[in-house]
Amino acid sequence: MLDPLFVNALEQICGSGAILTGNALAGQDFGFHPENLGATCAVRPQSTEQVADVLKLCNRFGVSAVPQGGLTGLAGGAVSNAGQIIISSARLPTEIEIDPVNRLALVTAGTTLAALDHAARKHGLCAGIDIGARDTATIGGMIATNAGGGEAFRNGIMRNRVLGLEAVSATGIIMSDLKRVTKANEGIDIKQVFIGSEGTLGFITRAVLRLAPAPGICCTFIASFSDTITALNMFHALNAMPSARLLRAEIMWRDYAVETAKALNLQAVLPAPDRSVHVAFEMDPLNGSVDAFLDSLAEQLETAGCEDVIVAQNERERNNIWMVREDSWALEKMFSHNFWYDVSLPHSMLDGYVTRTKDALQKLHPSIRTFVMGHLGDGNLHLTISGTDEIGELHDAISEIVYQGLAASGASFSAEHGIGTDKRSDLGRYGDAGKLQIMRMIKSALDPNGIMNPGKVITIDIAET
Amino acid sequence: MLDPLFVNALEQICGSGAILTGNALAGQDFGFHPENLGATCAVRPQSTEQVADVLKLCNRFGVSAVPQGGLTGLAGGAVSNAGQIIISSARLPTEIEIDPVNRLALVTAGTTLAALDHAARKHGLCAGIDIGARDTATIGGMIATNAGGGEAFRNGIMRNRVLGLEAVSATGIIMSDLKRVTKANEGIDIKQVFIGSEGTLGFITRAVLRLAPAPGICCTFIASFSDTITALNMFHALNAMPSARLLRAEIMWRDYAVETAKALNLQAVLPAPDRSVHVAFEMDPLNGSVDAFLDSLAEQLETAGCEDVIVAQNERERNNIWMVREDSWALEKMFSHNFWYDVSLPHSMLDGYVTRTKDALQKLHPSIRTFVMGHLGDGNLHLTISGTDEIGELHDAISEIVYQGLAASGASFSAEHGIGTDKRSDLGRYGDAGKLQIMRMIKSALDPNGIMNPGKVITIDIAET
Repeated sequence: MLDPLFVNALEQICGSGAILTGNALAGQDFGFHPENLGATCAVRPQSTEQVADVLKLCNRFGVSAVPQGGLTGLAGGAVSNAGQIIISSARLPTEIEIDPVNRLALVTAGTTLAALDHAARKHGLCAGIDIGARDTATIGGMIATNAGGGEAFRNGIMRNRVLGLEAVSATGIIMSDLKRVTKANEGIDIKQVFIGSEGTLGFITRAVLRLAPAPGICCTFIASFSDTITALNMFHALNAMPSARLLRAEIMWRDYAVETAKALNLQAVLPAPDRSVHVAFEMDPLNGSVDAFLDSLAEQLETAGCEDVIVAQNERERNNIWMVREDSWALEKMFSHNFWYDVSLPHSMLDGYVTRTKDALQKLHPSIRTFVMGHLGDGNLHLTISGTDEIGELHDAISEIVYQGLAASGASFSAEHGIGTDKRSDLGRYGDAGKLQIMRMIKSALDPNGIMNPGKVITIDIAET
Repeated sequence: MLDPLFVNALEQICGSGAILTGNALAGQDFGFHPENLGATCAVRPQSTEQVADVLKLCNRFGVSAVPQGGLTGLAGGAVSNAGQIIISSARLPTEIEIDPVNRLALVTAGTTLAALDHAARKHGLCAGIDIGARDTATIGGMIATNAGGGEAFRNGIMRNRVLGLEAVSATGIIMSDLKRVTKANEGIDIKQVFIGSEGTLGFITRAVLRLAPAPGICCTFIASFSDTITALNMFHALNAMPSARLLRAEIMWRDYAVETAKALNLQAVLPAPDRSVHVAFEMDPLNGSVDAFLDSLAEQLETAGCEDVIVAQNERERNNIWMVREDSWALEKMFSHNFWYDVSLPHSMLDGYVTRTKDALQKLHPSIRTFVMGHLGDGNLHLTISGTDEIGELHDAISEIVYQGLAASGASFSAEHGIGTDKRSDLGRYGDAGKLQIMRMIKSALDPNGIMNPGKVITIDIAET
């Protein structure tokens, strides 16, 4: 399905060993989405220049290119089809330069988050961003999707951690803007255009990332609250504690917490299962004194009138807490139909939103159950809407309820997973019209032939293909 | 010099009282740059829709528009010429909504930084960003120029503080993306394109900004060090102190500190004038206990072997310290020619860079003296290069020395003041070529007639004007 002249030229650029087709391609791990490997071939360039030449070739032949990293994306942003090629970061030279004095790292796009974090910890530093897919997700993919995760409330999202970027635009222009400083006002900040554009404008090859001080010993505890306002007050109090650094604050509403704990046979994890919300906190006692920290924690909790707390006494108990938070698959098995959503809301809206959404969904269909958990610090909620077969037809109606009122109140219908293929129609419906128009203008300017990750995020009219 | 039909239409959009010409325009405060008010007229729209209509009109008549806020920019980004119009934020409705639960503010572009900060402090919060021009600089201008300042090392630059943005593109498209959340991956992040583009792509009308907890009592002290590595170690130690929050860390190299202190007759401010660098620190003792903080500070200093420290004992002594740091005009009076630079460097480069630059400049012309101060936390240095009349001819040679090696090492030739008109040729010479090419593609796409703040940052070829 690809012009043999194109394939020949591709081999000339990258070498024949760089190209995977047929069974060799099908045998690769397709990652999270079964359609990721639908392309006719995958090419694995070994340098930024090769990426540029491949993209120029794609423009010449009108062949679409789908950038791929660790394939852990949750929105179908790396799905590829026959007639397209995959450009993979897998064979870009592995480079992790840790610069401890300046607390930053220079890495190539194919580096996994875990590899970066591991290298940084040898210098008392860490990546400062963490997601469940850490062992597989690549830095290139995390930048392209502007990854979030549980540490974003204190260290920022991926966008905030990128100091410098090297990328190749859709037409093959190499931008090498590998800054190692916070302040650089050198005209329009083009790296921001690539960050979070989900591979629709170009291919990221290298980046300079801020690092954060590595945490020491972790104290993990879980607390039950009657509402999110009380939980948020505790969050702010813990976040301002002088004797420890708050690392994580993950919230679970009752239904999610109770059902997941039951499914995992870990009911003992929850201090007061009947309470409305449960928050798992993790803190790093400064000066390394856990006992002193626990004393001041007890004081904090008493002041706040928070009695329902369980502090993990050992690594097993700590893991149990995080299993309940992270194993959202446990729920999936209980229902025939499940829809996922990834929204973020201002703190003040959390309680009202969850109650209203749950009630409206239950009215829509009595089999629907709404399970909610997420990152308390930044109001990022992950919803699993589950029910019987019959709700399979109700996707649009469910989305309308879940997204209702978000745009008008400064909340987001798409928090950290991105648009990809899955949320394209939602973007059209819930995104700002002016913003979409400007997005299309930029897409058309940077990718006039529409060869870069087509069908993701936005579509443009192509004059000629 | 403007088509009467155009002026008529402008009046119809904004009302005749919104337009200033002739003496009325000339009588306005021109701010920092004497050429800011060169335009034929200034229009002061009262709504986002009026801004959009004005820009559509400018496109129809081929009239250029120069956006203006507080006119405190230092790079000539608001300079205007005859035949152009100024679009001012002065009459946009004043709106400062402080949202204390979510710790953010919704403000209109014409709001000054001081007004925002004042409103936030009533709720125990603050703007979290501070610059010397706080009483005049507007939020619109600070976003357009991606302002920095002395708190950027801990709270980020302006870009990091903008959660949501409303702006009108050069062709009059209104984007209203007033998010109140940290995580919102809804396609290409268009607000990032406007932030820092210095009014070359559109006009900012409203924004949602993060706020920060307001500091309590401030402890200010100044320390002298033999080199920046020792100073940086102290910076990191103070920044990690559990009992206080480091608010500011401003560095002055000896020549700057000694000469400015002398000019202001404040020599007593410097603990050890002969030392290579002097750093003014400001800290906010948590729990409000100054005495306890001073005890732990003394411990820190002793551990670091830092003996040359003066702690301000009262408000007058505190002001004296900041006067030496902030009154860079004191130097100006001593020399007939002065050039300013605004660079940022990774911490590890600071000492070597300052020494090398000073030596090379002295070799260039014996009258040259190099005065350096800046923000230690983010390596942002402000250089004043002074000398006799003869150095007036040496601007290019001086720039070459000041900028030498910066790009290759991840440093920036343009840290926080931006490009404007003043650094356009520097951008062409020291900016990344690929990045410049993509900047021009975006400028052409969003401003096809080149009417938006022309002559600033970059130039594009216009098909027709």
